[in-house]
Amino acid sequence: MSDSPASPAPAIVLVRPQLGENIGKAARAMLNFGLTDLRLVAPRDGWPNPDAGPASAGADEVLANARVFATVPDAIADCRYVYATTVRKRDLWKPVVTPEAAARELRERALPQAVLFGAERSGLETDEVAIAHAILTVPVNPNFGSLNLAQAVILVAYEWFKAADATPASQTNYDPPAAHASLEGLYGHIDGALEDAGYYNVPSRVASTKRTLRNLLTRPGYNEKEIRTLRGIVHTLVEGRRGHRPKT
Amino acid sequence: MSDSPASPAPAIVLVRPQLGENIGKAARAMLNFGLTDLRLVAPRDGWPNPDAGPASAGADEVLANARVFATVPDAIADCRYVYATTVRKRDLWKPVVTPEAAARELRERALPQAVLFGAERSGLETDEVAIAHAILTVPVNPNFGSLNLAQAVILVAYEWFKAADATPASQTNYDPPAAHASLEGLYGHIDGALEDAGYYNVPSRVASTKRTLRNLLTRPGYNEKEIRTLRGIVHTLVEGRRGHRPKT
Repeated sequence: MSDSPASPAPAIVLVRPQLGENIGKAARAMLNFGLTDLRLVAPRDGWPNPDAGPASAGADEVLANARVFATVPDAIADCRYVYATTVRKRDLWKPVVTPEAAARELRERALPQAVLFGAERSGLETDEVAIAHAILTVPVNPNFGSLNLAQAVILVAYEWFKAADATPASQTNYDPPAAHASLEGLYGHIDGALEDAGYYNVPSRVASTKRTLRNLLTRPGYNEKEIRTLRGIVHTLVEGRRGHRPKT
Repeated sequence: MSDSPASPAPAIVLVRPQLGENIGKAARAMLNFGLTDLRLVAPRDGWPNPDAGPASAGADEVLANARVFATVPDAIADCRYVYATTVRKRDLWKPVVTPEAAARELRERALPQAVLFGAERSGLETDEVAIAHAILTVPVNPNFGSLNLAQAVILVAYEWFKAADATPASQTNYDPPAAHASLEGLYGHIDGALEDAGYYNVPSRVASTKRTLRNLLTRPGYNEKEIRTLRGIVHTLVEGRRGHRPKT
């Protein structure tokens, strides 16, 4: 078998692809998410195809290593588990999974595996779907379900890549909130400036207005650098005013 | 605002898209996953573009309803929360989320929201990223991270569609973030006051200082009432100053 058994990365098998451009785009989509094993079954215009390279946007290694086979069984001879992508309902009793579920399974099995994609217009033939262990279907707008080939490939590749690491990838790139004393300093600065300018002119609402101000400054969780910037801004506004104030 | 408040479906904003073909493919990707609100900022070749229709593969309604704007702030004037898609690291303190996390958040907020996508080659300018509340980054092969425009759109749209049946998560007792136009008004108010007061006195740092200010005001997600309060505070400080300024 061609894949290292240690690698769970599935082969992407394009069955009777029509346009070299779409093969190139599929290669790009694969490499975006770390897949490199491209297999072509009876590409319409032969192989290599001069339209593939430009469309791959630099995924040359994927195209260079692509292998061509005459039939689907030939292409998946080394694979232990195979998914057939299809949107149409088939009269076949097989598990039907989403790209997300398939990605989880692919990772868990960690075996040589493949995902079949049919030709641009016609998709996979029913006999080809029958060869697969399971059907992979992308959940899609029921009123507009035509995914192009490279789009279908990228969704499968993306889910495979995401499934590498169950830990959430979201992160923040900001410093933690400032010490309370810094925040208090900012609050006091603005509060004092507003007192000077006569902002608190409705006695019954002074307390709630001050609470509102405090909340406006607290909720963002500003860090030390941000608070220094805000102090500078307030200082500029206040000193600008004082600088123009007639001496009394 | 143009979106029904009941619809959480985000607007897809293509900023300075170059090729009509890519606009068409983005429209197709959107409709595949139920998104229909396409907005174009300064498309290079004008609009409509004859290359868009054939590439949309039938997503004509999305193209027919696309709206064109001169600037990003114009395009997102009605939006309450905005994501900027980018792969490059930016020197901005903003939350960074995956498409999956963004999709959950978009569903939970159920407000007019937008996702910005930059031009094919150059991506978004840093000032455009600064306008957004958060950065959306697709986890991708670090050695081959160039996603094409329609591929980036389809991954966001796909995750949005998948998140349809996620259970609603935690609620806050805050009003939702204000429309972008309100935030822009607050920013312009403070920025103008700082200009008047000579705050931007180091020419080489004007742009980054303005971005910092914008980020300080954007990140909290202030709601309409909070922004009115902040406008009042700034007005008090500025008018206090002007009230004392000698007539010239």
